Amino acid sequence: MNIVDIINKKRVGKTLTYEELKYVFLGYLNNKIESYQVSALLMAICINGMTDEETINLTKVFIESGEILDLSSIPGVKVDKHSTGGVGDKTTLVIAPIVASCGVYMAKMSGRGLGYTGGTIDKLESIEGFKTGLSKEEFLQELKDIGLVISSQTAELAPIDKKVYALRDVTGTVESYPLIAASIMSKKIASGADKILIDLKLGIGALIHNESDANKLKEIMIKIGNSFNRETRVMITSMDAPLGRNIGNSLEVMEAIEVLKGNIDTPFASLCIELASNLVSMGKGISLSDAEAEVIQVIKNNQAYNKFLEFVKYQHGNINSLKVSDEKIEIRSTKRGILKGINARIVGEVSMKLGAGRVAKDDPIDPSVGISLNKQVHDKIVEDDLLCTLYVNKVKDEFNIRDAFIIE
Amino acid sequence: MNIVDIINKKRVGKTLTYEELKYVFLGYLNNKIESYQVSALLMAICINGMTDEETINLTKVFIESGEILDLSSIPGVKVDKHSTGGVGDKTTLVIAPIVASCGVYMAKMSGRGLGYTGGTIDKLESIEGFKTGLSKEEFLQELKDIGLVISSQTAELAPIDKKVYALRDVTGTVESYPLIAASIMSKKIASGADKILIDLKLGIGALIHNESDANKLKEIMIKIGNSFNRETRVMITSMDAPLGRNIGNSLEVMEAIEVLKGNIDTPFASLCIELASNLVSMGKGISLSDAEAEVIQVIKNNQAYNKFLEFVKYQHGNINSLKVSDEKIEIRSTKRGILKGINARIVGEVSMKLGAGRVAKDDPIDPSVGISLNKQVHDKIVEDDLLCTLYVNKVKDEFNIRDAFIIE
Repeated sequence: MNIVDIINKKRVGKTLTYEELKYVFLGYLNNKIESYQVSALLMAICINGMTDEETINLTKVFIESGEILDLSSIPGVKVDKHSTGGVGDKTTLVIAPIVASCGVYMAKMSGRGLGYTGGTIDKLESIEGFKTGLSKEEFLQELKDIGLVISSQTAELAPIDKKVYALRDVTGTVESYPLIAASIMSKKIASGADKILIDLKLGIGALIHNESDANKLKEIMIKIGNSFNRETRVMITSMDAPLGRNIGNSLEVMEAIEVLKGNIDTPFASLCIELASNLVSMGKGISLSDAEAEVIQVIKNNQAYNKFLEFVKYQHGNINSLKVSDEKIEIRSTKRGILKGINARIVGEVSMKLGAGRVAKDDPIDPSVGISLNKQVHDKIVEDDLLCTLYVNKVKDEFNIRDAFIIE
Repeated sequence: MNIVDIINKKRVGKTLTYEELKYVFLGYLNNKIESYQVSALLMAICINGMTDEETINLTKVFIESGEILDLSSIPGVKVDKHSTGGVGDKTTLVIAPIVASCGVYMAKMSGRGLGYTGGTIDKLESIEGFKTGLSKEEFLQELKDIGLVISSQTAELAPIDKKVYALRDVTGTVESYPLIAASIMSKKIASGADKILIDLKLGIGALIHNESDANKLKEIMIKIGNSFNRETRVMITSMDAPLGRNIGNSLEVMEAIEVLKGNIDTPFASLCIELASNLVSMGKGISLSDAEAEVIQVIKNNQAYNKFLEFVKYQHGNINSLKVSDEKIEIRSTKRGILKGINARIVGEVSMKLGAGRVAKDDPIDPSVGISLNKQVHDKIVEDDLLCTLYVNKVKDEFNIRDAFIIE
């Protein structure tokens, strides 16, 4: 096999075999194929696409490059959920305790945030003492003991994906359904869950900007899941405005707790209930409406909140330690009209600049800063209305946050 | 400007500006842009193409990256000719002395061969003592003194092209009209000639395999030439069968000499006359038929041959030194029929394996080996007819040379 022949094959739009994909990507992982050759191939894939079979084969190559977590020692059905990333997305913190309270196991490896999107691990670390780096044994033991666990990466899952993702990021080859699908699904399948729910974000604050792209991605992710015998559901949900009211690490944990305490009359809570209901429906093999009834019950009877407290304690966190900065900047409207939109991207970027997120991979983050939105899309606005509050610490600047509010 | 934005722009098929192209390619030359980023962009260019204006701008960036040879100290019109490469292509050796004999200056920087195609410089070096590496002063002086000069690269012309070409070669991004056109034309324009003739090879022994591709490439090369005020003609000529009878370095010089001595009743001689006539027509601003009459005259009256001898002597070559190996392998037909074709690619590869060409850039070559074809396409063949003679030295093998002869 010859790398140039393989690249040429994809350049003219032909289909690559499993063996060819393995040759290129495993070769890249093992430093036998050069990055400039892989990036040329990635660009050809971006533009010419891949067949479903090819995408499934690529996913297989990614999965086989690393460990596959074995959850078979846990007796019941294990589910996993992945969000393609957004601003203010703290759904995992709400869903995992709900699902576990309903008797379905949820084991999740999460990432840290980069750029304008946050990561679940960063959010959990705003709880003092919370241990996010678990060994494989600790991970499995907690899942067995309390029905849920969230950890930063424990096993080396799909290492090719990690290396390829870093290359895509700097070579303009991020936007490709086959590459996105293989990246997400390889990690989820290697994580060992039986059933997978993907929360596919669509909108200006997300990677995917139009519905037709989202549908294509949904379709191929379901096909990949099925081909590996994982029941897979994909929900396409909006990421035009930030998710929920709070953006920033401590702020988001607080908002998650509010939902778990029973404050469920918000769009954010509705999304959490819908996601959780899908997981419970898959996990127990029951209808979505039966699952939803169970989900609402475990919130109302405090089981889910108590499970959350149990989970935080199990991972050595002190729930009373959550802290938001005392220094605030209040942003008030200078206009009158209807709030037509809140640009998630701008809000995410300002939050990052305040210290809640990272520009580079190893930047420290400040859990106490962030943004709390005081208005929702469709609200009537008059002059001097409070639009949002910035919680600031080292960086005291409102940046261009006003641009996020579209008032007409 | 940001490299990832530029790559993304081309990925979605938009047009890059002169400034963007300069940012990427000059950055690459100066090691400020990574090769894996350039290869991704090159692949996007291969698949999505470039507008004419974009291709002209790319050529401009290539030209401006190096020296531009100033031939203005030579009084008359200077012409240059470039062949896109083929097997047995020794036309330059015939044309240059003819054109100079007609009073048109021809200054040419030539390359060495790589793979199955040969290089003019290698051919000239089969003449003992021939000096191919000239200084800029020597180059100009010879042109002024005798009207022609052929040297390996004297000035650093279009250094970006050199670096980009090496990257294209290993990343499956060779086949692209804009990239091929910019590569060829940037070097020709930087070489300083007023008028440019491109011999665009089409066929199984060439880079371009179909006529529609050849026409597109022709059109854009003429546009590029014109935009830099260089009258440019492009002739599309066949490279299915090898050019002429001999393949190999000494062998090819000998065949060139035969034409100059007046043996002009062969397809190879006809091609040389056509190319030379175009150059003389452009150089003197006369009709093609008037030019052809002059060309035939300088061959018939020995002026062209004498010019060749003058040229060899000027560059310190000993014309009596040409040597072909005494060891031969005769290849005879085992079939009866019509010779439908001679595969130039196979002939080129066997010649290379015998030692006449190089696999890697710095391999030594053996001027004494090669292949002399004894039959032409359309000839009737009977059993035991001599098809060709291999002149061998260190490597004594007929390889798969029989496969080159298609007898039906």
